[in-house]
Amino acid sequence: MSAGNHAQGVAFHAKRLGILAVIVMPLHTPSLKVEHTRMHGAEVILQGTTFEESGKFVQVLAKKRNLILIHPYDDYLVMAGQGTIALEMFAQQPKLETLIVPIGGGGLIAGMAIAAKGIKPDIEIIGVQAKQFPAMRDWLNGQRGKCVCGTVAEGIAVKRPGLLTRRVVKNLVDDILLVGEDEIENAVLMLLQIEKTVVEGAGACGLAALLGNFRRFRKKKVGLVLSGGNLDLMTLSTIIQRGLAKNGQLVRLRVELSDVPGELGRLTGLVGEAGGNIMEVFHQRIFSAGPVKTAEVNLVLQTRGLHHLAAITSGLNENGFRTLLPSHEHIG
Amino acid sequence: MSAGNHAQGVAFHAKRLGILAVIVMPLHTPSLKVEHTRMHGAEVILQGTTFEESGKFVQVLAKKRNLILIHPYDDYLVMAGQGTIALEMFAQQPKLETLIVPIGGGGLIAGMAIAAKGIKPDIEIIGVQAKQFPAMRDWLNGQRGKCVCGTVAEGIAVKRPGLLTRRVVKNLVDDILLVGEDEIENAVLMLLQIEKTVVEGAGACGLAALLGNFRRFRKKKVGLVLSGGNLDLMTLSTIIQRGLAKNGQLVRLRVELSDVPGELGRLTGLVGEAGGNIMEVFHQRIFSAGPVKTAEVNLVLQTRGLHHLAAITSGLNENGFRTLLPSHEHIG
Repeated sequence: MSAGNHAQGVAFHAKRLGILAVIVMPLHTPSLKVEHTRMHGAEVILQGTTFEESGKFVQVLAKKRNLILIHPYDDYLVMAGQGTIALEMFAQQPKLETLIVPIGGGGLIAGMAIAAKGIKPDIEIIGVQAKQFPAMRDWLNGQRGKCVCGTVAEGIAVKRPGLLTRRVVKNLVDDILLVGEDEIENAVLMLLQIEKTVVEGAGACGLAALLGNFRRFRKKKVGLVLSGGNLDLMTLSTIIQRGLAKNGQLVRLRVELSDVPGELGRLTGLVGEAGGNIMEVFHQRIFSAGPVKTAEVNLVLQTRGLHHLAAITSGLNENGFRTLLPSHEHIG
Repeated sequence: MSAGNHAQGVAFHAKRLGILAVIVMPLHTPSLKVEHTRMHGAEVILQGTTFEESGKFVQVLAKKRNLILIHPYDDYLVMAGQGTIALEMFAQQPKLETLIVPIGGGGLIAGMAIAAKGIKPDIEIIGVQAKQFPAMRDWLNGQRGKCVCGTVAEGIAVKRPGLLTRRVVKNLVDDILLVGEDEIENAVLMLLQIEKTVVEGAGACGLAALLGNFRRFRKKKVGLVLSGGNLDLMTLSTIIQRGLAKNGQLVRLRVELSDVPGELGRLTGLVGEAGGNIMEVFHQRIFSAGPVKTAEVNLVLQTRGLHHLAAITSGLNENGFRTLLPSHEHIG
């Protein structure tokens, strides 16, 4: 059972070695992960609404069909395999002082912590979890998990950390940081824009943690693991558009105008002259909140950012148009 | 003057060497390129609606301010620098048989052709241009350029190839292929989804040419140059959404329904049960094309692709709803 990379890794090697692979994934797994796993020749069964439900199903299935269960994280060999990432990082940069590693079930960080501390005992190992799914951190603090459904980091949305991984994390991981959804989305966008790399939410958590705690890591040689790129185009597009809305490049503007012919032309003309690119117009007067002789226009606009947006709206105001931005869309 | 990477390269090295850099770019250069060039400390002047207009301006400016002009492609040293890419590719894969290289002004392919044929005289060098801007190919065929404004590959939208580069291309380049806008967008999406890499339109032309001529390149060791990643988020988002619309994952569906209470609920219920994710609903009856007692609903839907979309629409039809897809959105 797997929510992503483990599935693809097992399927790939099973095909290479001529072994049958049956992979169980949660029902709402992004279609890209399912397709890629099937492409490697594995039989994929979608079962369970959470990773935990899939886990229960897979145990029954393994007995019934006489299959060997390869757990995605609670298995020493799986941890050891994932730990080789630390070896590769040291090979490229021996002076690393800190590693920041996302935690779902805990296999990746457990393996990497063992490998890294074996080579360099004073290296600092920092785990990252989504605020919505802080299961490992809660367990270390003696708390019961209070996981909220729904995170853009679905690759680490694990409610119960492994029994074997917990012990390793307790002994070798120095701290676990939590990152919010906004921070994760922002990190995905930075990786796209600056590194030109598609990284999924779970994989971008390390960068999110670094940015959210930059004073703590200042002047240190920090290694981040970008642990997956299974981001389907729909999700990617949504993250991009939310990012554009946040920095004012994509904005919904409500404008009140007198209900006389020509006003809409004057309004859109002014927006165009100011360099605003109108993507959508919705013009209505029945439900206008203003007096009876006013109409309301909703514009979806492309701008060059918050300053440009402010210039457009103040230009409209000077020309007698009252403007209103939907409150959930930021304007500096 | 530059439409992208040349600007950033010159700005980067000028700063490093403590030299003043003034870069002229066309007015509608994507803001990401402008920002990145300014970040490297260069003075950026936006002038001219085309690359050619910027070129005329830069010559006047260079005289007036006593600056040395570093041409983006028509300069033997610039070509030589770009040619080192071929050396790096051979270092990693000595068995390369074909190189596919985008052509704008021709500097990149000229330098690479000289370097590659110097090492391996029988290597095949293939150039790629956008169908909208086939200037170098037209020139080689003795034709005058008939360039159309507007291509997603604005990084190679050059109307007049260099005088020096032309001669090298004529002597050393084996063929020039043309690629359409659809093919370029598709290549950008494949690089995002499979290689997890953000490549701009101009940079994806090589893959587009490979896919459009796959029989020709079958069984050959082909090297592609992904020559730039200056894709701003707005353009990237548009390309993604157009791709989703093309393969039926994002679709606008028009449904006719009786104008009685409860019908909209029944319709959206059926869509939801079939696994369609409704993103937008626009329900109106005044302008319905059908009889007076019918209303019309426009749904913007997320689906898992064309098969899923077909299943949703046939389910609606079985339940008495007449459905219509806007003709410009493909359905297999």
